[in-house]
Amino acid sequence: MSNEDQLIPRSKDFNEWYNTLVLKADLADYGPVRGTMIVKPYGWTLWENIQQALDKRFKATGIENAAFPMFIPMSFLEKEAHHIEGFAPELAVVTHGGGKELNEPVAVRPTSETIIGHAYSKWIQSHRDLPVLINLWNSVVRWELHTKLFLRTLEFYWQEGHTAHATEAEAWERTKLMLEVYTDFAVNDAAIPVIPGEKTESEKFAGAQRTLTIEAMMGDGKALQSGTSHYLGQNFAKAFDIKYLDVDNIHQFCHTTSWGLSTRFIGAIIMTHGDDKGLILPPRLAPIQTVIIPISKTEDEKQPVMDAVDAVQKQLSEAGIRVKVDKRDNVTAGFKFNDWELRGVPSRIEIGPRDVKNNSVAIARRDVPGKEGKVIASREGLAERIKSLLGEVQQSLLNKATKFRDENTQQVKNYDEFKSAVEKGFASVWWAGSDADEARIKEETKATIRCIPFNQPDGKGTCFYTGKPADKIAIFARSY
Amino acid sequence: MSNEDQLIPRSKDFNEWYNTLVLKADLADYGPVRGTMIVKPYGWTLWENIQQALDKRFKATGIENAAFPMFIPMSFLEKEAHHIEGFAPELAVVTHGGGKELNEPVAVRPTSETIIGHAYSKWIQSHRDLPVLINLWNSVVRWELHTKLFLRTLEFYWQEGHTAHATEAEAWERTKLMLEVYTDFAVNDAAIPVIPGEKTESEKFAGAQRTLTIEAMMGDGKALQSGTSHYLGQNFAKAFDIKYLDVDNIHQFCHTTSWGLSTRFIGAIIMTHGDDKGLILPPRLAPIQTVIIPISKTEDEKQPVMDAVDAVQKQLSEAGIRVKVDKRDNVTAGFKFNDWELRGVPSRIEIGPRDVKNNSVAIARRDVPGKEGKVIASREGLAERIKSLLGEVQQSLLNKATKFRDENTQQVKNYDEFKSAVEKGFASVWWAGSDADEARIKEETKATIRCIPFNQPDGKGTCFYTGKPADKIAIFARSY
Repeated sequence: MSNEDQLIPRSKDFNEWYNTLVLKADLADYGPVRGTMIVKPYGWTLWENIQQALDKRFKATGIENAAFPMFIPMSFLEKEAHHIEGFAPELAVVTHGGGKELNEPVAVRPTSETIIGHAYSKWIQSHRDLPVLINLWNSVVRWELHTKLFLRTLEFYWQEGHTAHATEAEAWERTKLMLEVYTDFAVNDAAIPVIPGEKTESEKFAGAQRTLTIEAMMGDGKALQSGTSHYLGQNFAKAFDIKYLDVDNIHQFCHTTSWGLSTRFIGAIIMTHGDDKGLILPPRLAPIQTVIIPISKTEDEKQPVMDAVDAVQKQLSEAGIRVKVDKRDNVTAGFKFNDWELRGVPSRIEIGPRDVKNNSVAIARRDVPGKEGKVIASREGLAERIKSLLGEVQQSLLNKATKFRDENTQQVKNYDEFKSAVEKGFASVWWAGSDADEARIKEETKATIRCIPFNQPDGKGTCFYTGKPADKIAIFARSY
Repeated sequence: MSNEDQLIPRSKDFNEWYNTLVLKADLADYGPVRGTMIVKPYGWTLWENIQQALDKRFKATGIENAAFPMFIPMSFLEKEAHHIEGFAPELAVVTHGGGKELNEPVAVRPTSETIIGHAYSKWIQSHRDLPVLINLWNSVVRWELHTKLFLRTLEFYWQEGHTAHATEAEAWERTKLMLEVYTDFAVNDAAIPVIPGEKTESEKFAGAQRTLTIEAMMGDGKALQSGTSHYLGQNFAKAFDIKYLDVDNIHQFCHTTSWGLSTRFIGAIIMTHGDDKGLILPPRLAPIQTVIIPISKTEDEKQPVMDAVDAVQKQLSEAGIRVKVDKRDNVTAGFKFNDWELRGVPSRIEIGPRDVKNNSVAIARRDVPGKEGKVIASREGLAERIKSLLGEVQQSLLNKATKFRDENTQQVKNYDEFKSAVEKGFASVWWAGSDADEARIKEETKATIRCIPFNQPDGKGTCFYTGKPADKIAIFARSY
């Protein structure tokens, strides 16, 4: 039972609220090896819904799925200098297999660019073999000691896309296209108003020429990098000899991309929409979209209520709504309300004896607490009514998150304003600083450039930090 | 290009045919670490179709998916004596993480009973928490040096289901139910007439009390174990302390099951249905159900043909048929025919200038070679026609495989007949031998008991080997 003790309210301690909520809502648990995570059925169903939402978008752009081995020879990782520099400190290394010490230890993949590069160099011969458009749904390992479920674990689940192209222009288009896919998914399915943009030199992926990102504001004002798309140039093509014969029969190196979104995104959903009472899941991704609670006091009332509940369940699930009936007989209705609110189910249907008589139900929406969010509705046309309610909840979550983000994003003119801005949210600034300036600001304020947003204002300004003329706005924030 | 040299005919060398076909059909490739496998998009799409076919059946029985870490403390594996004995020789061991030697090395999961047992012991407290019905889609590692793609690789993909129950009866029902699910899937989606039955003591899973299996006959007469379901009794419950309070408030150990089906099943599909020309994929699982080949000789013919091709593609895909158009302009139509036959696409549509004039197409079915399998059909009602053809192909593959299995299964009365029977297929025998008899037969003939089939004849017989009275038929065969 998850409600034996109270959830720590979000308003009281955001960090502890998150940690206890993930466990109490049955999303995930800690694995026995330090840093690992078990994703429980409720959390994994949420991830399956995310997977489906992304996968259909990927496939619509021509992507196919494949699977690559988790074991990568250590020598592969060393072939691209920036890549090994970035990943070496986090590797898990298998030294023994089948009872013997291995001649060459193998790493458990931290990401698959290198093993993909090796395969593509074999598979790609001619311009006719291009583009190669492959995605992998898998898990990767980065040895982390400070775990936070979904946000930072030793093993995590994600998709990693890897494409190879004949030209720089085509590879760059693909890099941008996949960030658009992520943005569309985040805004329209997860109701998270992400800011798409480009990473600066110091924040880009180890081995990339350019990294694009979507950045989200969490309920505590910190940023969460929620998906990235990398233009790798010819770095990996040269390291792994990925070449093709062009139409003139001349060997050319390919241009490659990679892009990923992980179970971290579940953290983004929790921290964007959740409230003091628990999760609020966006209806399009919620494992359960509506929960039905039967309410009866006497034995006589029980059967007619259960008949009505079963009929409503059938009506709704035939209409494609993900519905669950809570038939537990060892807890009160009030307990059930709290329990499903904690789990973030976007709508609730209550059916009691009076409803049976009136052919009605009571409907409550998760995002509007108390009486204000409750209506009595007829069972006639209930499926349409619930669908329309789910659409409203979806939209209202996006509106609320957008408002919160905008209210907590400040246009700042100087370093003092900046320091106070990043205490509570994002700082939007004219920026013409150097890598060294960025590093100094990070050290002094813990805030980093989350991205240079694609959406830039007209005109120019003055860099808040250096006072130099600036032609770009940057978003600074503290981040997860 | 996959057809540069000819496929070795199946009739000439079954083993080499298999090995070259898997590569040529673009199903899979070897990974860089010895024993590992890359599943290419065509092979992975086949696996995705298998996953969907199984997953919906699992969910219909109340199963939910989850994810468990790949890393298992070595000490966990040692808790169940038979289990560690079975798996110790095949473990991959991580000794270093994050640049440091680990205090306790961790194994990469060979299967997850132990880490599941640990979690269930935490999650299960009361009879109200039961049953727990969880499935994992993941990969597992067993250190193998002799690779055969899909059949035996160091890392392979599968699903592993793990359930916990209050009573032995319920756990045993679940064990049987999941084997029924596998049987239904194999027969009706993969057109493989598997034999469901029970393993003998010597062939059961390391740690199980009883193991159920589906066994299939490959095109060379050998058996392939295609899916197994284990009743684990209280072995793992006692090793991991999985207990619940029953209605009388008394602690009881749970009864658990596990069951799995892997990418090995792709090997079964290849070796059951394939022929000299390549794969033949059962329509229900085929990544591409029909391929359209445009045929034009002159430039003038090209555009009208392509218009017709595009219209037919639209017509078929709107009807839910998985269709592909082969637009390559650097290979001949004849090359394309061979290429898609090799890849096992169950039906082919050809559209040439005459078809454009007559509003017709030519349809060829993969399982009936030459003119006999070819018809001219109107474009009116083509989607229904193709759907019905796919149904026919599906049924005819099952019929053919059933006939082949039955023709190559001999009822044998003595050891001489037995020896010749297992040279070419299955031996069906009355059996009352001991474990030692079974071991001796294996040594002398390489044949093992694949299963004691559920479907038993009436009456009793005489054991072909010991001459003792026997009340059970056993199926012996050489196996993969």
